Amino acid sequence: MTLEDIKQHLQEKKLDAFLITRNNRFLGQDTLDGENLISRLTGFTGSAGLLLVTTEKNFLFVDGRYEIQAGRQTDPATTEIVFLSKISFVDWLKQNFPAKAKIKYNAWCLSVAEINFFRRCLPQTKWVADNTLEPLEPASVFAHELQYCGQTTAQKCAALAQKLDDLGCRGCFLGAADSVSWLTNLRSDALPDTPVVRAMALADDSGAVTLFADDISLPAATEYKVVPFAKMEKELASFSGMLLVDTESTPDAVNRLLEKNKISVCYAEDPCKMLKACKNETEIKGMTDAHQRDGIAVCKFLFWLEHNRADTSELGVVEKIRELRRQQPLFYSESFPTIAGAGANSAVIHYQPTAETDVPLAGNRILLIDSGGQYFNGTTDITRTVALEAPDRPMTETCTFVLKAHIALVTAKFPKGTTGAVLDAVCRSVLWRRGLDYRHGTGHGVGCFLNVHEGPQSISARALSCALKENMVVSAEPGCYFENAFGVRIENLVRVAADEQSDMLKFVVLTLAPLDKRLIDKYLLTDGEIRWINDYHQEVYQKISPYLDEEEKSWLAEACSPL
Amino acid sequence: MTLEDIKQHLQEKKLDAFLITRNNRFLGQDTLDGENLISRLTGFTGSAGLLLVTTEKNFLFVDGRYEIQAGRQTDPATTEIVFLSKISFVDWLKQNFPAKAKIKYNAWCLSVAEINFFRRCLPQTKWVADNTLEPLEPASVFAHELQYCGQTTAQKCAALAQKLDDLGCRGCFLGAADSVSWLTNLRSDALPDTPVVRAMALADDSGAVTLFADDISLPAATEYKVVPFAKMEKELASFSGMLLVDTESTPDAVNRLLEKNKISVCYAEDPCKMLKACKNETEIKGMTDAHQRDGIAVCKFLFWLEHNRADTSELGVVEKIRELRRQQPLFYSESFPTIAGAGANSAVIHYQPTAETDVPLAGNRILLIDSGGQYFNGTTDITRTVALEAPDRPMTETCTFVLKAHIALVTAKFPKGTTGAVLDAVCRSVLWRRGLDYRHGTGHGVGCFLNVHEGPQSISARALSCALKENMVVSAEPGCYFENAFGVRIENLVRVAADEQSDMLKFVVLTLAPLDKRLIDKYLLTDGEIRWINDYHQEVYQKISPYLDEEEKSWLAEACSPL
Repeated sequence: MTLEDIKQHLQEKKLDAFLITRNNRFLGQDTLDGENLISRLTGFTGSAGLLLVTTEKNFLFVDGRYEIQAGRQTDPATTEIVFLSKISFVDWLKQNFPAKAKIKYNAWCLSVAEINFFRRCLPQTKWVADNTLEPLEPASVFAHELQYCGQTTAQKCAALAQKLDDLGCRGCFLGAADSVSWLTNLRSDALPDTPVVRAMALADDSGAVTLFADDISLPAATEYKVVPFAKMEKELASFSGMLLVDTESTPDAVNRLLEKNKISVCYAEDPCKMLKACKNETEIKGMTDAHQRDGIAVCKFLFWLEHNRADTSELGVVEKIRELRRQQPLFYSESFPTIAGAGANSAVIHYQPTAETDVPLAGNRILLIDSGGQYFNGTTDITRTVALEAPDRPMTETCTFVLKAHIALVTAKFPKGTTGAVLDAVCRSVLWRRGLDYRHGTGHGVGCFLNVHEGPQSISARALSCALKENMVVSAEPGCYFENAFGVRIENLVRVAADEQSDMLKFVVLTLAPLDKRLIDKYLLTDGEIRWINDYHQEVYQKISPYLDEEEKSWLAEACSPL
Repeated sequence: MTLEDIKQHLQEKKLDAFLITRNNRFLGQDTLDGENLISRLTGFTGSAGLLLVTTEKNFLFVDGRYEIQAGRQTDPATTEIVFLSKISFVDWLKQNFPAKAKIKYNAWCLSVAEINFFRRCLPQTKWVADNTLEPLEPASVFAHELQYCGQTTAQKCAALAQKLDDLGCRGCFLGAADSVSWLTNLRSDALPDTPVVRAMALADDSGAVTLFADDISLPAATEYKVVPFAKMEKELASFSGMLLVDTESTPDAVNRLLEKNKISVCYAEDPCKMLKACKNETEIKGMTDAHQRDGIAVCKFLFWLEHNRADTSELGVVEKIRELRRQQPLFYSESFPTIAGAGANSAVIHYQPTAETDVPLAGNRILLIDSGGQYFNGTTDITRTVALEAPDRPMTETCTFVLKAHIALVTAKFPKGTTGAVLDAVCRSVLWRRGLDYRHGTGHGVGCFLNVHEGPQSISARALSCALKENMVVSAEPGCYFENAFGVRIENLVRVAADEQSDMLKFVVLTLAPLDKRLIDKYLLTDGEIRWINDYHQEVYQKISPYLDEEEKSWLAEACSPL
C-alpha cells in the first residue's frame, strides 16, 4: 500500500483519513522492517507511533522518546509531526477534524481497547473497519525446553484453568503472541530479536489449546491443532460457554468475529500475563545466569572500547557488542537493535545508528549504549553511559544525578500492593530536585527468553493498576537528555524479591557491569550511595572476573575499585 | 434517635440495616458533639466512620487512624469494629449481607457520589432514602474582612461566572459550607473550631447568590436572599438553564429535589474548590503572618512544657496551648481539638485526652502534640513530638526517620501537573526503606480562616487526580506508630511555590517551631538533611525570638542551635 493508493482510496470512498498503526495483527509485538507501514510511508522507524493519512498531508503522532528522531527521519513537506507529550491523539482530532469525520482503520491492527477508547472519546466520528490481513513471513517453531522454562504446558494450562474458573469462564482467547509462546513453551525465528511464536490461541479449561497461525512449521513432537487465520471465524463460532477476552491484546477484528457469532464474552485481563510475569524458580535461576553471561560480554566490550575508541564508530560499537554476545553459551540473538549514540546522538533517546548517521567515537566525550541479549534461559537489557574523551562537568554531574536516581529506585523497599507509579516517583523525584526529568518511563517488564518489553508490570507515572509482585523482572532506567548536547541513561534489570527484614518487597539487581567512575562525582553522593556503588562493583568483579583474560581482568579490577 | 428506635423501625419496615454517617447535611464538615449520631449510638468520637445498625448488632467501619481508638471507645458486646484497611465497606456488604438487602440511609447525610457508588457496586441492594432534616443550632454570621480575605465577593463571583461559562452552565449549586463561606466572605460561630457559615447556596453567572440556611443571623451590611431549607425545593424548581452540581459535596436529598423538578444538571467539580485552594496574595501574606504568631504561642508552650512537665498531664497540655494561642492577636479559636498523647497514647493517631483517659506526663518518655489555631487571617496546624524523660533508642531512631521523610517531602521539587500521590511516595518511601509506614495520608489541604482540612488538594496514595498548584497550602505530616508503645509525627504546613531555578514547583514551609533535637540522631542524617534542619531552626529563631521574654529567648536559642 503506497501513500498514493491510500489517498486515492480516501477520495473514492469520501473518507477523511486512514489511521495507520505500527502493528500487524500481533499488537504491541515487534514487527519486521517490511511490515512497518509507518516506516514505509514516512521513513520514521521508531518503535511506537500513529500515522493519520489524509488526502492533503500525513500527521505522525510520536511520544517523548521520538520527538527528535521523528523530525530527523521524515519530510516536513509531506509529514507533520505531532508531539503526544503536548496533546493527545484524541484531543488533536477534536481540534483539527470535523466531529463527524470518517476514519478508516485496519481492524487487525487496533486492539479492542484502543478502538473502544476512540469511539468513547469521539462518539460522532465514524470509524470504518478494514479487515485486510497482511501476509506473514514463514517461520520455524521450536520447543523452549523444560530445563529453561521450568514448567510444562500441562502445568501452565492447569494454572490458567484455575484462573478461568475463578472468573466463571470456560475458555480464553489469547491474542498476545508472548502469552501463546509462554503457555505452549514454544518459540520461533519469526522475528530477529524476539523469539515469540506469531500465533494466537484458544485455550479452554480442559487444557486444550488451539493455535491460530499462518505458515509456521511446528517441531515434530508437538501436537497442537493449528488453524489458519482465514478459518479462525469457524473455529471461534464453535466455542460454547463464556470466553475471556483481553481487550488490550485482542485485535478489534477478532472481537467483531466473536460479536458476529454471538459468543458470550467476559472482558478481563489475559491471565497468562500475570502468570508469565511472575517468574518461576527455574526462570529466575536462568535469568540470573543469563545476566552473568551477558555481563561477561559487556565487560569484554567495555575493555575493548577503552582500547579501540580512537578507531571505531557507533556502528563499530554495535557490531562489536553483538560479536561478543554471540560468543556466550546459550546466546540466541540480541533482544533489540542496539542503541549506540556518541556525543549529541546520545541525547536521542532511542537512537540506532545507520550508515547515514554513523559518527566516529573520536572527538566525542560520551557514549550511550543500550543493548541486550536473548539467551535460551533469559533475556537481558542494559544501558551504560561511558566517558570517551575527558567528559566535561555537566556530563559528570548529570551522570551522577541519574545514578543517584537509579540507586534510589533499586534500593527501595515497598509494601506489597505498591504500583509502578509510586516507584516511578521514588526514582524521578531525585532528578526533579535538580530541576531535571526524562521523557520516558522508568522501567518496563522483561520476559524470559521472550519480549524484552512485557506487561502488565512497569514503572511509570501511568502504572497505576498493576502492583509489583515477587519474581517479576523490570528494568530500572532513569536518564537525562539535553538535545544537541548529550544524554545519559543508566539501566539495570532487577527482580522483585521479599525483604528478609520486613514484610515488604525489594529489588535484587540482575545486571552485572561496571558504572563508569569517570562520570561519577563522589562528592555529590551520600555515604549510602557510595557504599551501594562499591558493593555493586565488588559483586560485578567477583562474578565476572573469573571469565576474563588477564588484561581484561586487571582492567575490570580498576573499573570496580572502590570510589 | 436511639438504637432501640432504629431497631424497631428496621423491624417494622422489614429493613436489613440503617446506614448512619457522621455527617449532617453539611457533608464532610465538622459536626457539633450533639449532632454526631455515631458517637451518640456507640461512643466512638473519631472524625470519620460509617455505622451500620442491624436488629442484631452495630457494625462500625473505621479507617487506619481509628483502629485502636474505636476498640477503646465502643462496647464489643453490641458493636463490631470493621477495619477499612482490611476490607472496603462495599466488599464487606457483599460478603455479609444478602444481595437484595434493604438498607435505609439519610439522604441529607450521604453525597450524590457516595450513594451512586454504593448503587453501582451493589446493584441489587435496595437503598431506601430517608429525608429527615435534623435541626441546626442557631448561629451568628459575621463578615470576613477584605484586609484578610483579599478579594470581594463580586470579584469571586466574576471568577466563578467565568468557570461556569467555560462549562456551559448558568449557575452552580454549592453544597459545601466552606465554598459558600469563601464566596460570600462570611464566617460564623456555628462550630467551635471551624468558622464556616452553615449554608448552601445557589450562585448564578450574573453574580447573584441565594443562601439556604436555617436560624442564622446575618450581619447588617449583607443583603443576601436567605431561603430556609424547608423552602429549598421551591427555590431550586424556579432555576432555569444548566445547573452545575458537585457530586461530592451535594447531599443526595438535594439531587433528588433537582431530579424531581427536572432541572438540567451538569455534574462537575464545584469551581469554588480550586479557586479557594489557590490562595491569593493577601491570604498568603495572612497565612504566613498567622504562622508566625502561632509559632510564638507554640514556642512559649514548648518552653513552658520544658519547665512544667513534672507537674502536668495531657489535659494540662491541651489547656496551656489553648491559653497561649488565645493571647495572640487576631486569634479566633483553635482549628481542631488538640491531640496530646503521652507515652503509649502517642501511638493513637487521633487521640484526644478526656478526663477518663488523661495521664500525667511524669513517667512518660515522649509526648505527641498536634494542634492548631484559627486566626482572622489564616489557619494553622502543627505537630511536634517532644522528649519528656530520657527517650530511648527506638524513639530517637524512629523520630529521626520520620524527620528524614518530612525533609524529603518539604524539600521536593516537582513538575507542574504532579499529583499528591506522587509526593506521598516521595515521603513515604523514606520510611519504607526502614520497613516502616503509617496508616494515614501524608498531607491535607488547609483553608484560610476556614476548614483545617480542605480539598481538592491532598498528599496521599489516593490523590491521583488533583495536581498541586502554586499557592495551595498543604500539611506535610509523616509519622510512625507502635501500638502500646509510642508514636511519632512531625507536621509543618507548606505552601506550593514556583521554583526560581527551574520550571518546577517547590514547597515553602510556613510553620515555625523547633524540632526536638533530643529526638534527632545526627548520625542517621545526610549533610543535606542536617543543613535543612539548621537552616530551618535559624529561621525559627530569627522570626520568633523577638516576641519572647529573655528566659524563653535563651531557651529557644539553645533549641535552635546547630546540630
